[in-house]
Amino acid sequence: MTLLDSPVDDAVPTITDMSVFEQHESEVRSYCRNWPTVFEQARGSWLTDVHGDRYLDFFAGAGALNYGHNNPVLKQALLEYLVDDGIVHGLDMATVAKARFIETFRDNVLQPRGLDHKIQFPGPTGTNAVESALKLARKVTGRESVIGFTNAFHGMTLGSLSVTGNSMKRAGAGIPLVHATPMPFDNYLGGVVEDFTWFERVLDDSGSGLNLPAAVIVETVQGEGGVNVARPEWLRGLADLCRRHDMLLIVDDVQMGCGRTGEFFSFEEAGIVPDIITLSKSIGGYGLPLALTLIRPDLDVWTPGEHNGTFRGNNPAFVTATRALEHYWADDTFSRDIHIKGRQIEEVLTALAGRHQGLSTRGRGMVRGLVFDDATHAGKVCTRAFESGLLAETSGPSDEVVKLLPPLTISTEDLDRGLGILVDATEEVLA
Amino acid sequence: MTLLDSPVDDAVPTITDMSVFEQHESEVRSYCRNWPTVFEQARGSWLTDVHGDRYLDFFAGAGALNYGHNNPVLKQALLEYLVDDGIVHGLDMATVAKARFIETFRDNVLQPRGLDHKIQFPGPTGTNAVESALKLARKVTGRESVIGFTNAFHGMTLGSLSVTGNSMKRAGAGIPLVHATPMPFDNYLGGVVEDFTWFERVLDDSGSGLNLPAAVIVETVQGEGGVNVARPEWLRGLADLCRRHDMLLIVDDVQMGCGRTGEFFSFEEAGIVPDIITLSKSIGGYGLPLALTLIRPDLDVWTPGEHNGTFRGNNPAFVTATRALEHYWADDTFSRDIHIKGRQIEEVLTALAGRHQGLSTRGRGMVRGLVFDDATHAGKVCTRAFESGLLAETSGPSDEVVKLLPPLTISTEDLDRGLGILVDATEEVLA
Amino acid sequence: MTLLDSPVDDAVPTITDMSVFEQHESEVRSYCRNWPTVFEQARGSWLTDVHGDRYLDFFAGAGALNYGHNNPVLKQALLEYLVDDGIVHGLDMATVAKARFIETFRDNVLQPRGLDHKIQFPGPTGTNAVESALKLARKVTGRESVIGFTNAFHGMTLGSLSVTGNSMKRAGAGIPLVHATPMPFDNYLGGVVEDFTWFERVLDDSGSGLNLPAAVIVETVQGEGGVNVARPEWLRGLADLCRRHDMLLIVDDVQMGCGRTGEFFSFEEAGIVPDIITLSKSIGGYGLPLALTLIRPDLDVWTPGEHNGTFRGNNPAFVTATRALEHYWADDTFSRDIHIKGRQIEEVLTALAGRHQGLSTRGRGMVRGLVFDDATHAGKVCTRAFESGLLAETSGPSDEVVKLLPPLTISTEDLDRGLGILVDATEEVLA
Amino acid sequence: MTLLDSPVDDAVPTITDMSVFEQHESEVRSYCRNWPTVFEQARGSWLTDVHGDRYLDFFAGAGALNYGHNNPVLKQALLEYLVDDGIVHGLDMATVAKARFIETFRDNVLQPRGLDHKIQFPGPTGTNAVESALKLARKVTGRESVIGFTNAFHGMTLGSLSVTGNSMKRAGAGIPLVHATPMPFDNYLGGVVEDFTWFERVLDDSGSGLNLPAAVIVETVQGEGGVNVARPEWLRGLADLCRRHDMLLIVDDVQMGCGRTGEFFSFEEAGIVPDIITLSKSIGGYGLPLALTLIRPDLDVWTPGEHNGTFRGNNPAFVTATRALEHYWADDTFSRDIHIKGRQIEEVLTALAGRHQGLSTRGRGMVRGLVFDDATHAGKVCTRAFESGLLAETSGPSDEVVKLLPPLTISTEDLDRGLGILVDATEEVLA
Repeated sequence: MTLLDSPVDDAVPTITDMSVFEQHESEVRSYCRNWPTVFEQARGSWLTDVHGDRYLDFFAGAGALNYGHNNPVLKQALLEYLVDDGIVHGLDMATVAKARFIETFRDNVLQPRGLDHKIQFPGPTGTNAVESALKLARKVTGRESVIGFTNAFHGMTLGSLSVTGNSMKRAGAGIPLVHATPMPFDNYLGGVVEDFTWFERVLDDSGSGLNLPAAVIVETVQGEGGVNVARPEWLRGLADLCRRHDMLLIVDDVQMGCGRTGEFFSFEEAGIVPDIITLSKSIGGYGLPLALTLIRPDLDVWTPGEHNGTFRGNNPAFVTATRALEHYWADDTFSRDIHIKGRQIEEVLTALAGRHQGLSTRGRGMVRGLVFDDATHAGKVCTRAFESGLLAETSGPSDEVVKLLPPLTISTEDLDRGLGILVDATEEVLA
Repeated sequence: MTLLDSPVDDAVPTITDMSVFEQHESEVRSYCRNWPTVFEQARGSWLTDVHGDRYLDFFAGAGALNYGHNNPVLKQALLEYLVDDGIVHGLDMATVAKARFIETFRDNVLQPRGLDHKIQFPGPTGTNAVESALKLARKVTGRESVIGFTNAFHGMTLGSLSVTGNSMKRAGAGIPLVHATPMPFDNYLGGVVEDFTWFERVLDDSGSGLNLPAAVIVETVQGEGGVNVARPEWLRGLADLCRRHDMLLIVDDVQMGCGRTGEFFSFEEAGIVPDIITLSKSIGGYGLPLALTLIRPDLDVWTPGEHNGTFRGNNPAFVTATRALEHYWADDTFSRDIHIKGRQIEEVLTALAGRHQGLSTRGRGMVRGLVFDDATHAGKVCTRAFESGLLAETSGPSDEVVKLLPPLTISTEDLDRGLGILVDATEEVLA
Repeated sequence: MTLLDSPVDDAVPTITDMSVFEQHESEVRSYCRNWPTVFEQARGSWLTDVHGDRYLDFFAGAGALNYGHNNPVLKQALLEYLVDDGIVHGLDMATVAKARFIETFRDNVLQPRGLDHKIQFPGPTGTNAVESALKLARKVTGRESVIGFTNAFHGMTLGSLSVTGNSMKRAGAGIPLVHATPMPFDNYLGGVVEDFTWFERVLDDSGSGLNLPAAVIVETVQGEGGVNVARPEWLRGLADLCRRHDMLLIVDDVQMGCGRTGEFFSFEEAGIVPDIITLSKSIGGYGLPLALTLIRPDLDVWTPGEHNGTFRGNNPAFVTATRALEHYWADDTFSRDIHIKGRQIEEVLTALAGRHQGLSTRGRGMVRGLVFDDATHAGKVCTRAFESGLLAETSGPSDEVVKLLPPLTISTEDLDRGLGILVDATEEVLA
Repeated sequence: MTLLDSPVDDAVPTITDMSVFEQHESEVRSYCRNWPTVFEQARGSWLTDVHGDRYLDFFAGAGALNYGHNNPVLKQALLEYLVDDGIVHGLDMATVAKARFIETFRDNVLQPRGLDHKIQFPGPTGTNAVESALKLARKVTGRESVIGFTNAFHGMTLGSLSVTGNSMKRAGAGIPLVHATPMPFDNYLGGVVEDFTWFERVLDDSGSGLNLPAAVIVETVQGEGGVNVARPEWLRGLADLCRRHDMLLIVDDVQMGCGRTGEFFSFEEAGIVPDIITLSKSIGGYGLPLALTLIRPDLDVWTPGEHNGTFRGNNPAFVTATRALEHYWADDTFSRDIHIKGRQIEEVLTALAGRHQGLSTRGRGMVRGLVFDDATHAGKVCTRAFESGLLAETSGPSDEVVKLLPPLTISTEDLDRGLGILVDATEEVLA
């Protein structure tokens, strides 16, 4: 097979505008509205559109591209696997690619962190992992209620949506989303209320009216919720609360795992061990759909086939996932590098915020937010950034936060360049 | 890049047994228990395991591999795209690969069938498509209840699970699955009750206690439910019932679409036009995760971003999906071929069933079931078939049906060979 | 105390029209719209309004006045009790009146019928009894779903409403009423489908999608639902189905108990023994609020106080209830009399129906329905009857049935007279 | 009819012990366990048991006997009505007794307070009133969620139970109680958190995950919850919050209305006007079952018959209710008397609490609590009080509060006497 000289689509008319999307894709489409151009190629931190314009990516597939676009290390492994006719689709049949992934995940991720969680492949997306985590927590405890947090985001299927905060997305359910109760995330009440004052009070009080929860599900940093960072002591307090009240602790590390905050798991800094962990987005390495549910061994009470799904065995993703773990997570070099670049971003944003009223910054590692008191400013900054060749999106309940999720593999030069565009855009909007 | 001489895993110890799965994967694993070997490569209708043993595949990724494993036509397009650094992960950003898929789907699927449905990319799995379909039906109608059918299978997330029949899987939810009511599928009551007698009666009667449904969701052939085939006249009756009672008709064509029953959509034979259609499994062509929700244009009332998901834009799947549509669905050649092979299977199974008491067969196109009155026989037949190098699984509420889903692209020789193994296995078990 | 010469309301202006109700009572009011006069006094089968007009009562408080209005036997006991300052309000404290009621109920109702059910006082209304029955059934079985029947009526609080069929009343809930599934009542499908064909099929089929029920709740004759009579063999079949499928059988005898169908309990004719029985309406005897939940002893797993309520101990109702049981249920005289009068009604209605197309009759004992094919006729007949001095109401999902519930103590002369009015009204409407 | 010389039960064996209850009444029975004697007669503040022992009543039917037992003013009216064969049972037919009640309620209650609420008769118990209030609030707003408060008590039917705090009672539901979210009652967090900090924050935040509520339901003093008193400014804050966030305000005045706190409605002190008000318990005056739902006129969107019930028209209760309103609520004499006696109780309890560590008191008007840090003490005090001839019950989530609800009509001598017994019992227990 010759790969390079079979231009199959020579005759295909070139796509140059958005019309095909506007005419045939559902109104639900979203990102293509903010970034109205047609992208064609990508490598590392850069995308190129059909006009040849290049965009620096501080969005990284909403956290699914921590290793950048089409990372050559992973690409090599992927192409070899495909050329060699490795199993592509395997449901949950045993395959060599899956076995190697499990071994590598065990050796490079679980064992070095003292974890012995069992691995479930719940389907290829984050919401599959969250649904399976909630189902298992309910099965283990025999209780049905789950605690979520204000401004949480866990997914769009009914189980995940019920623990998600955003009212517009919740309304999409079309049925009452019950079986979950929100509690205040760290710093939600502006520091005037001590941590867990309300949560612990209602747990302790048999007359509170709170249905005893099966589990608590939490993100250590709420990305969609506005880059809200839980302090390590808050997370430890939460883990302690769960233990004392016999609730399972589920950390949804779909967006913040795989190194985004510096360590592989975002909860490592706090020194806690969740009962169940969800991973997706960057775990596949190359942007290919993959998700994991990690389960404390004694909680692995699933019946065979009790949760299934067609695309649990996306073997190309096992291949790139394995390669990413081998290449980036064999030691702590990558982790240290993330922290260094994280501080680089923090310094720039802190300085910027220091120069403007109504502007602040928060984040951990390489997830950072620029928070505008005037919510309309955030969107304007993103629009200007796009015009200057930078992709960044807003988050938070009022879209008041510019959320930065650059590839963890970005060069410091590109990082500088992107931050420069962002600073300029902000200065212009606030001028 | 030279693909063929970089054996990256020379030093990696060979995987030869199931131990890594037994030790580290969750108890929920399922197919690997029935087919306890480690698969390594696949092409067309054949898989090869680590011992070099070859298996003929009458399972086809539970319907996700209608074009066979690693179909060379699609493989070529996929490799070119990856080598060329096409966009791999794109959320719902506009990309060239996505645009071409939309155009091809419009030209080769929708337009020839007189359909103008809008296309939603709801996330890459069937259950994402079902969840989005149910959400939209509820939003459009302002009602919350949905009608599912006995022995239906629609997926494992909470919304889909509530319209799924299997009690073991339902129990996995851990919360009461409400908001859905089952109605009898075609022939459920053995023909002694006229179609829709009960369903229509409770709809007509304002005192029946049935919550007025937003929608009906149906599979035209229930694969997991035991290869239960709805007759065209039953489907037309159902469509008529929906129209008269202002309920949306959702056809879940995740397993039966993409040619499995002969035509691209399984409902074409009945001449009905569903309001919403879900597609997944084989739509990606190469076994890569992809799903679509097709929406009658006037029902496309989504707010931008109201349903989202990270892996909506699995661009490699757009590439293989496009190539599959171009190659197989430009005219009706493929469809006619499926019908021919379907009849080939039917003849063999009908003859087999004719030779044995307690054995019958049913199916459409290239989905066929061998139904054993003694449910234990079906599993034994599958076990013997596996020992003889054939993969086939059971289905039905008591696993009483051997379900055949060979690749649609299988050669008649391989089809003969596989049917021969199956006939032998059956004869032995029933001997 | 001199009772008869202290006309306390001499100075009170006389109420002569409906204006006070129209101005100050909620729009939810209902019966007063159909019978737009102000009633002042009542005795036996007759009411008198403020204009001195007399009305013969074939409605009997919707079954709450089986012994007629202000029955002198009960009145004597009630007045003595009140004069003597017996406990009036007792919650569930032990009182003499309550003890005597329990003893009498045991001696005259339970023991002669071989029953040893425990007695719960769940609050004074039928819906309290139904709610407690459903709660207990769920507690005993650990399941949440309940089977109700088409056109059932069990009450207006959320638990009871969820097993009630009427769509207008269900809509009043304002939340989805789930946790209950309707099944076809006897003869619902016009006899073309064998009893329990559908119900048993979904119970037997683990893939049916029916949540395994905790209990079945049934009325032996559906009064509000249109005087639908379950045959004894259907009730026995249902009891058998419950036993084989480990579901509790709850008979809601709120309207049909206390002799309405001839025997004290309406299910006696069928020879079944329900696990839980609800009674209210006429159990208090004098129209005073009282309700009972009768529980098979081994199912009495309530925790003390787990279900409570302020008016569980309406002691005046215990007094009149006791007196009624003593007077009417010490032997089978009353029962035989009911059957005789029931046949009297049946004969008249059968003859009437025989004279008209589109008219039929059904019922048991002294609950009888006149069923009009043209639903509008039933309301017209009731209106004419009212104009002629007879109270009777419609029932059924389309208000197509004139429902007759005369006091069981009515004289044959009054019964004749009322039937005469009804016949005339019908003849006029159908003329 | 001669009332006084017809000793009908001469031959009836005397009830002398609890055996009939122990043998035949359900295990759910409760008060009779704490006060194990059989009561026979009652008048004013005193009950007499079968042994002739007298008990002073500081319980008053859990608030249903504000005017004392068998109040002679009401008794006279009741006997006359019954003797005169007034309508006893009337569903929602128009009757003279009902008309007079409505007029008197309008003249003596609504109009003097500037209220024009429509009156619904939702069934005769508090939980009927609460269920109808919740249904109407959901219908009016089109939303399903309701806010309740920690340690609230609203009733035992499913709708009311879902807004009730007590975990034991909630567990009795047997299904998940959803559609309601608890918020902190006044002072719930010990004053360290400002009022409504959490509640308002989640309402303001579209990402909080709180389903937008239809209504808030609140007791101004939580009787069952432990005599928790909401401050007027908190109630005003709550009313303001409701107005600003378009939530209906429901005040459940079932236990605290009818003068218990001094004014007729317990919310009058705060100067707020609820959208919906529930009344029951003492509204009937004589301990007879009656309940009202008061509805702001523009919210009265009920369809006729959308909520119904057999015992809505308990006419004897209308008679005693009317007489009570005439006698006690024609001017403010009664109200001033309640406040005086309330202060009398307060002084005694405050002095008592001042003499003991771990003891405090709280309350309003004539509902007062004696709160023990050691929860076991409260039950012991009640047991000793009973032995000394005083009835008082505990409340609060741990039964840590002795709750005093003496009849509002109690003489100051009897009040002194009862308080003396209580003080002695407390001194003994704490000695």
